[in-house]
Amino acid sequence: MAKETVVLAYSGGLDTSCILLWLLEQGYDVVAYMANIGQEEDFDEAKKKATKIGAKKVIIEDLRESFVKEFVWPAVSSGLIYESRYLLGTSLARPCISLGLVQAARKEGATYVSHGATGKGNDQVRFELSCYALWPQVKILAPWRIREFTERFQGRQDLLQYAASHGIPVPVTTKAPWSMDANLMHISYESGILEDPSQAAPPEIYQMTTDPMKSPDTPTLLEITFKNGVPASVKNLTDGRGPYTNPLEMFIYLNKVAGQNGVGRIDIVENRFLGLKSRGVYETPGGTILHQAHVDLEAFCLDREVLRLKSYLRDKMADYVYNGFWFSPECEFVRGSIQLSQEHVTGWVRVQLYKGTALAVSRNSLVALYNQSLVSMDEHGDFEPEDATGFIKTHAIRLKEFQRFKTQAANLNK
Amino acid sequence: MAKETVVLAYSGGLDTSCILLWLLEQGYDVVAYMANIGQEEDFDEAKKKATKIGAKKVIIEDLRESFVKEFVWPAVSSGLIYESRYLLGTSLARPCISLGLVQAARKEGATYVSHGATGKGNDQVRFELSCYALWPQVKILAPWRIREFTERFQGRQDLLQYAASHGIPVPVTTKAPWSMDANLMHISYESGILEDPSQAAPPEIYQMTTDPMKSPDTPTLLEITFKNGVPASVKNLTDGRGPYTNPLEMFIYLNKVAGQNGVGRIDIVENRFLGLKSRGVYETPGGTILHQAHVDLEAFCLDREVLRLKSYLRDKMADYVYNGFWFSPECEFVRGSIQLSQEHVTGWVRVQLYKGTALAVSRNSLVALYNQSLVSMDEHGDFEPEDATGFIKTHAIRLKEFQRFKTQAANLNK
Amino acid sequence: MAKETVVLAYSGGLDTSCILLWLLEQGYDVVAYMANIGQEEDFDEAKKKATKIGAKKVIIEDLRESFVKEFVWPAVSSGLIYESRYLLGTSLARPCISLGLVQAARKEGATYVSHGATGKGNDQVRFELSCYALWPQVKILAPWRIREFTERFQGRQDLLQYAASHGIPVPVTTKAPWSMDANLMHISYESGILEDPSQAAPPEIYQMTTDPMKSPDTPTLLEITFKNGVPASVKNLTDGRGPYTNPLEMFIYLNKVAGQNGVGRIDIVENRFLGLKSRGVYETPGGTILHQAHVDLEAFCLDREVLRLKSYLRDKMADYVYNGFWFSPECEFVRGSIQLSQEHVTGWVRVQLYKGTALAVSRNSLVALYNQSLVSMDEHGDFEPEDATGFIKTHAIRLKEFQRFKTQAANLNK
Amino acid sequence: MAKETVVLAYSGGLDTSCILLWLLEQGYDVVAYMANIGQEEDFDEAKKKATKIGAKKVIIEDLRESFVKEFVWPAVSSGLIYESRYLLGTSLARPCISLGLVQAARKEGATYVSHGATGKGNDQVRFELSCYALWPQVKILAPWRIREFTERFQGRQDLLQYAASHGIPVPVTTKAPWSMDANLMHISYESGILEDPSQAAPPEIYQMTTDPMKSPDTPTLLEITFKNGVPASVKNLTDGRGPYTNPLEMFIYLNKVAGQNGVGRIDIVENRFLGLKSRGVYETPGGTILHQAHVDLEAFCLDREVLRLKSYLRDKMADYVYNGFWFSPECEFVRGSIQLSQEHVTGWVRVQLYKGTALAVSRNSLVALYNQSLVSMDEHGDFEPEDATGFIKTHAIRLKEFQRFKTQAANLNK
Repeated sequence: MAKETVVLAYSGGLDTSCILLWLLEQGYDVVAYMANIGQEEDFDEAKKKATKIGAKKVIIEDLRESFVKEFVWPAVSSGLIYESRYLLGTSLARPCISLGLVQAARKEGATYVSHGATGKGNDQVRFELSCYALWPQVKILAPWRIREFTERFQGRQDLLQYAASHGIPVPVTTKAPWSMDANLMHISYESGILEDPSQAAPPEIYQMTTDPMKSPDTPTLLEITFKNGVPASVKNLTDGRGPYTNPLEMFIYLNKVAGQNGVGRIDIVENRFLGLKSRGVYETPGGTILHQAHVDLEAFCLDREVLRLKSYLRDKMADYVYNGFWFSPECEFVRGSIQLSQEHVTGWVRVQLYKGTALAVSRNSLVALYNQSLVSMDEHGDFEPEDATGFIKTHAIRLKEFQRFKTQAANLNK
Repeated sequence: MAKETVVLAYSGGLDTSCILLWLLEQGYDVVAYMANIGQEEDFDEAKKKATKIGAKKVIIEDLRESFVKEFVWPAVSSGLIYESRYLLGTSLARPCISLGLVQAARKEGATYVSHGATGKGNDQVRFELSCYALWPQVKILAPWRIREFTERFQGRQDLLQYAASHGIPVPVTTKAPWSMDANLMHISYESGILEDPSQAAPPEIYQMTTDPMKSPDTPTLLEITFKNGVPASVKNLTDGRGPYTNPLEMFIYLNKVAGQNGVGRIDIVENRFLGLKSRGVYETPGGTILHQAHVDLEAFCLDREVLRLKSYLRDKMADYVYNGFWFSPECEFVRGSIQLSQEHVTGWVRVQLYKGTALAVSRNSLVALYNQSLVSMDEHGDFEPEDATGFIKTHAIRLKEFQRFKTQAANLNK
Repeated sequence: MAKETVVLAYSGGLDTSCILLWLLEQGYDVVAYMANIGQEEDFDEAKKKATKIGAKKVIIEDLRESFVKEFVWPAVSSGLIYESRYLLGTSLARPCISLGLVQAARKEGATYVSHGATGKGNDQVRFELSCYALWPQVKILAPWRIREFTERFQGRQDLLQYAASHGIPVPVTTKAPWSMDANLMHISYESGILEDPSQAAPPEIYQMTTDPMKSPDTPTLLEITFKNGVPASVKNLTDGRGPYTNPLEMFIYLNKVAGQNGVGRIDIVENRFLGLKSRGVYETPGGTILHQAHVDLEAFCLDREVLRLKSYLRDKMADYVYNGFWFSPECEFVRGSIQLSQEHVTGWVRVQLYKGTALAVSRNSLVALYNQSLVSMDEHGDFEPEDATGFIKTHAIRLKEFQRFKTQAANLNK
Repeated sequence: MAKETVVLAYSGGLDTSCILLWLLEQGYDVVAYMANIGQEEDFDEAKKKATKIGAKKVIIEDLRESFVKEFVWPAVSSGLIYESRYLLGTSLARPCISLGLVQAARKEGATYVSHGATGKGNDQVRFELSCYALWPQVKILAPWRIREFTERFQGRQDLLQYAASHGIPVPVTTKAPWSMDANLMHISYESGILEDPSQAAPPEIYQMTTDPMKSPDTPTLLEITFKNGVPASVKNLTDGRGPYTNPLEMFIYLNKVAGQNGVGRIDIVENRFLGLKSRGVYETPGGTILHQAHVDLEAFCLDREVLRLKSYLRDKMADYVYNGFWFSPECEFVRGSIQLSQEHVTGWVRVQLYKGTALAVSRNSLVALYNQSLVSMDEHGDFEPEDATGFIKTHAIRLKEFQRFKTQAANLNK
């Protein structure tokens, strides 16, 4: 009988290398799939490694442009932010990778996909829900939830021995006492010494952003332009660089300039989908600028009540995306709705970067609900101040009634 | 017939001085009421001025402690933030002042209250809704909405002339080309040159916060303790100051240390209750630290689903407060509900201040939902990774069904 | 100087007849505008009356089809229901009439529109907000809020005398001790004896529906078909009538058959936009059937999470419509969003009518998320019961943690 | 080694009888736990049967009063209704039974609980989440999700054989082609022939309610009194019965009179927590009356904005309860909040029952926000109609701005 094929989301690291070998031992053919979503990685080296271990084939796919345009841009337009603070860098990458993985698996005639995500985390959910949504018939092997695997590999030491004994090259440097996950949008750090939230993260942890204390002593002013809620160009008004208009180039530039200015670090405790709380340290340099700029322009362009509705939908969508439901009826619906709200979110915002801060300082739009002559203290415009009297007195009816009611209730209780 | 008495919310400035005089001209007895809510003001000088103009009585009341405990603290516990960015400094002060004003008016046997808030703004609404709610029978004189007044005083020049011709001392310095409103929590700047949101605010505008470029070159670490969601103490871990536990002292200290580090500036366009958009520049030094710290501790202590509910209530309450409905059935209800959620929000957060940033870096609680041993990658704990499989596969049912549905629908349309 | 023209929303009744005359007395040219939105009215008689009073022109416009298609159908698709009970018959008619009124006014070169809605009600708001939204420059005359008018006409008696003395025909029958407002969708009854909510409404009040006690003793079964959330056809399965597919005919038929079976009566206290509570008695025969049927089909066709989002948007939209914001950015946005949700709400529902009840009893769709084989107790299908274990145990993590937390907190407090 | 004890939620039916025996075969000691929550059952007979099969002990506990007071009453106060239609009769019973089960298990020194709920349904989730929340250490045996059990018992026939071969008495009547679940609040029917939602349920299915066609030809008028949102008494104004004030008696009487009048039947498709859609037929006679009455009184007593907030919380709570999260931090929080809203929901509502309908026809309260003199068309009261002008014109600002904006945007696109 022909062997069944597994397409494995392969990172080149110790875990997925061991998983690759273990899957071969279980009798599968294994195709290693590596998505380039902007992480620092020696893909050639990783390819050699996977081939050496025994992968039938190694696929390396550059998803960076798709990641920016199909995942990061919608997140920016939607204003996604999880639990008021986290910009969802990992959550957005997972469905992007899953899409590539599923397409590869179908092309390779595989029946299985596999990944190295652990059993307590969110990523297993994000990978698998994305795969099931895109390809309901898929079978998924998650070794970190398979008893034979977890009993054999109870710690990093077991993996190292297994690798060594099978000639898999192992990392020569000592592992950092935390784990990290990187893509074009952010790096997340968790586990290890970070599991104690009462201890501050070590300053050397960050890789995308300069320590604000070592960042430039003068501010940098950027002008970000949006068209229909989507980032359209970035210009550095301080040094004249830009405009960058190609999405990938623009985002890479934003990461660079934000990183140089120490922008985008957070240290939080968050609620995982499985019901645990975990501590995460994140740096999202370019994404932080775009988020701030979009929030600012939206307040300028959107009607107040539409902004309220959009905020509600934004919060729901942030939960969907965090929990792995990017490819879901609810996310599809919310994205469509939010897009309706972005029709006129067009204009520019100037954002000042300085030692960890990214502040909107001015903004404009060819067409906006902001109306300088209407709001001006120096002009009456169409506005008749007497109208406010009726407005206030009418709103007061309900409050006066409540007062009457409370007095009456209090008298009754006497 | 005896004259009717008006109690006027008096600031000592040009506008309310002219209003005082004008009310006297209309045949009212006027009591000038000045609330000290932390603004920089020479109250003695103002008292002399009001007396000179003809006030029957001048009341100066120190509301600072009540402002902090009854208004700022609940705002912090509730996590209030308007349109994702504004911490509501002015909105919180208005009901506090109104409460003092109404109590004074009742004590003085007045039938009227009056104020100098303008006709396009939010403050008139906040003042008057608060007054009507607290005292449904009150009559309110808002000169900036009375035609006789607005026709007579069409600009600042008219006020200056009026004042000069009646011996009211006028400001000798040129007025800044913007207006400002200050209290213990913040200063807001708007109008004048700020009405053009495409122009950055001038750097010299800020009065509570040092320019981050001139602030200290090394970070300051604070430890903020909360008890049941309410700030309980502040300690400066860098220089050993504190702990400050008296609410007023604590808040004054926070303003000072945050101000020195340039923390709490924002420049935004916001939606006023009347339906206009306006541009506001705010500095809220101490409030920004407390907001960040409370958000951080709450994520650590509250159950995820309770956090979601609280976020919804928080957003509603922010709108109520911004719109002037502090004293309303809805605000009373939401405050009661939110208080239920804060029962266990007890612990400390360490916040690092540095050149405009205030970042939570660590946190702890004697009792918290965070469970290091449960979340740890190094322990299995009570957690069985196999359970996640059923969790994911069950959540996938709905997604697979949706895929089946879409395929079926697409086939039908062929 | 040429007289200015007012277009008056004219009903033919005592109030608007007197208003017509009064406007003429104030020196305006008056065009009487009558919208036929399905109310019982002798339009020819009304036209004669208006002409006799002095209207420069009388416009009678049949808006019934537009009312059904542009206002009632979207309300059905959106599932609009105010405060869980009221189907918004009057609220939907006002923007429809306003649209006709504004178009007429522009065509006639008028600068004013006028209406007879009273000063405590919702309709004045709905009329005027619609007019301002459609034509921001419009000037509105609302005599029931103009002091000269209200002082002159303090009660019905004053109007009767004024009419009589100017040769305006007055109603010969005694006025019912309540007021009513009728259109194709419903009749509302309020005021007069209905103002006491502790007294049941008199049985003779109803005009569109038969008293259930006198309605047929056997049920009637209808089949309602929807396409993309919009009513597409109605068939009476009991007597074979139909299918009715023309929107206006369909709705008229539904009113008839529902009315015969006593369907659609409610007696409620509701919250008006101005902040008062009022008691209203409504009969909405056809609308009740469509609402029930649509709710039923939607539950059958929509994904659960999309249904939740739609419910939220539905409740918001019901408030917007009730409050007069049909033509508003928020309503436009919500309508667009809800439409996205209706793409697959296609199928039929059978509704049984009997003595006041309209119950969905069965439903079907060519394509639906309902999956009989998946849910069946007699088949395993794709479903593996073991998965539910992991689902439950994972959901239990958070609950167990909360228990641990409470125990720990309780111990601390000892 | 001593055997471990399982406490089994025992119904006396075929399934749990076989489970009892099977658990004994697996080597457990089994205590059969029967909760009387108002279902029709011969408890003595069931006890004999369990004993005969081999139960170590049989516990029969009357939970009816606790069910009414601790579960049904809060549901009524909260206005719980799932997906706009289902009153949650089963969902409320599960946590009530689970509480009894867990208490019994702890008393008996058991380590396990077990139940007969199936693997695709909601009840397994509700039982188990309740048990885990109340007793995090509990171990749960759900045979319908245990492979050894499901492989052995693939259909009803296998259970019958197993029972027969072990001398377990089997039902002599043919099983109805659907399954049902009964308690004091409702009976639910599902499965079997009901799995086809395009087929109407057979009329003979209902057991708590008379067919409306056979119910009395004259209406019955009830007066329901609430105190702080909780049902306080019921009186039949038509025949003079009552007042019933004891919760259990009151609820039993309401079931009886509502049942006689055919009130409380629905036939729906609903969304299960597991992600499937299922068809359910329910009859909830007394609960329907209480729900209608409470909704009516609440609209009368609660401030509009508080009502909006409560509606939001109500919808969230309905989902929590349906999904099995009665004992959860979110449900505890929402219950506390809702209770705050009910402080003044005190008064009476008259509900007319007639052939399937239960309509509120009048209501009153000693203290209510309804203000007849304020709303009256015949009195001006405190209300000045001119104020409405300013109210409307101010609300129109935003709409006019939107119109200006759209015109400007359209011109730009030309």
